[in-house]
Amino acid sequence: MAAGIFSVKVEWGDCDGARIVFYPNFFRWMDAAAWAFFASQGLDPAGLLAKHGHRGFPLVDARATFRTPARFGDTLEIETTLARWGGKSLELRHVFRNAGAVAVEGRETRIWGVSDPNDPERLRAGTIPPEIKALIRETGG
Amino acid sequence: MAAGIFSVKVEWGDCDGARIVFYPNFFRWMDAAAWAFFASQGLDPAGLLAKHGHRGFPLVDARATFRTPARFGDTLEIETTLARWGGKSLELRHVFRNAGAVAVEGRETRIWGVSDPNDPERLRAGTIPPEIKALIRETGG
Amino acid sequence: MAAGIFSVKVEWGDCDGARIVFYPNFFRWMDAAAWAFFASQGLDPAGLLAKHGHRGFPLVDARATFRTPARFGDTLEIETTLARWGGKSLELRHVFRNAGAVAVEGRETRIWGVSDPNDPERLRAGTIPPEIKALIRETGG
Amino acid sequence: MAAGIFSVKVEWGDCDGARIVFYPNFFRWMDAAAWAFFASQGLDPAGLLAKHGHRGFPLVDARATFRTPARFGDTLEIETTLARWGGKSLELRHVFRNAGAVAVEGRETRIWGVSDPNDPERLRAGTIPPEIKALIRETGG
Repeated sequence: MAAGIFSVKVEWGDCDGARIVFYPNFFRWMDAAAWAFFASQGLDPAGLLAKHGHRGFPLVDARATFRTPARFGDTLEIETTLARWGGKSLELRHVFRNAGAVAVEGRETRIWGVSDPNDPERLRAGTIPPEIKALIRETGG
Repeated sequence: MAAGIFSVKVEWGDCDGARIVFYPNFFRWMDAAAWAFFASQGLDPAGLLAKHGHRGFPLVDARATFRTPARFGDTLEIETTLARWGGKSLELRHVFRNAGAVAVEGRETRIWGVSDPNDPERLRAGTIPPEIKALIRETGG
Repeated sequence: MAAGIFSVKVEWGDCDGARIVFYPNFFRWMDAAAWAFFASQGLDPAGLLAKHGHRGFPLVDARATFRTPARFGDTLEIETTLARWGGKSLELRHVFRNAGAVAVEGRETRIWGVSDPNDPERLRAGTIPPEIKALIRETGG
Repeated sequence: MAAGIFSVKVEWGDCDGARIVFYPNFFRWMDAAAWAFFASQGLDPAGLLAKHGHRGFPLVDARATFRTPARFGDTLEIETTLARWGGKSLELRHVFRNAGAVAVEGRETRIWGVSDPNDPERLRAGTIPPEIKALIRETGG
């Protein structure tokens, strides 16, 4: 399967004084949806983080278009697909639906984070192993 | 003046397990920088929110490019400019500098939020009053 | 029923540089568990907020004891009970279990928030209506 | 000096649908005030985290009493003192003032976090070195 579905319920504390979701939370949910997507494709995050010096998937770019506001009590379904594999990066597409209608469309470009051999505290982009790429098919979306 | 400078210190709780800023926080800081920018240009948020049915500046689009990670203890300077006025929207540009180097470049497109006359609980985009537009000059950046 | 169960999955972004949950998130989850508890007892938050000038349940006191750390990927079950009704306040008890073991024990004392008649922008504690109290039984826990 | 002052400006995104601070944010600010307090007393967090296997100051208990709500645009001054040193723990007291009046009183009990020698990924409480205790005087408050 090439898509992951992540569901989130909008909480009181996710909303601002206009009683709609404070927009940075959509990026928080994209991040959670990304990890859930990886896990759903057999790419276990905890396992990854424990080996190969893998350090997560730092962002190089993130964007979102907000079509309709979401409110306390709404349930959002996030459909995540892998749009594109790069050599050291990947691009995810996230579509949020609220009661069936598209609420938010987002994209994240992430690198394959590894420890810098010259300074283990530092992160750099590593080449994505072929066996990882084989796990998830590009949608090109 | 056509630019606002907003400063933020990166806290322990802003960082994730890779000990770099968890990226949605950059959008949280862009939002804070946007409000600070408006205030610095004479567009007092509290005053606005109290009159004309103004309901804030909901986002229609937000994006960021992350150039270098930021860490606990770093101080980020965010330079905010108004790139463009639209009829019912505006586009802000945010440049984060960390020890002088550009760390993040972001953009937000926001509407002028007003209560929907047919349903005061709902928000819609209103025409930006000319006296508001006169306060801030476009940079076109 | 006098208890509500709210479940939360710990996300990457909920954890800090020590790779354990950044503790304020437990209070965020207590707040979400409180709203879910009210809803589970027939006290619909959206309905409440729309009438009687109800303005939510502002906190007067919150506390938590942290027994064991929680990590990315853990699923926490939060059991919420109403320990005590006061005239204008209520006390909730939240027990977080992680794989069966108690991870966090928390308490919140909240008021019944209403708009101040002299200044509708302000909040004050209102007397809790008897029909609301009738909905939920104290556990005294 | 035995007290640290940390200042925070309340942002739009810190507030909820009642247009007051969403309460878990006060704990987020206590955490930031704690780190700033340590730094102000000569206990440099970045230096600490880099040596001795120090892993931060995980919480065992946190509590707060909320006296008056804080709103968007308010500036909060947090006065932090070390109430008590224990063998492996310490207790901090945080007083938030808003325009001079006490808004929130909080307490945190934290351990001295070190890596577990049997499982470096795990945290445990370590004995606080005497040279650290010598840096900060208890107020007993």
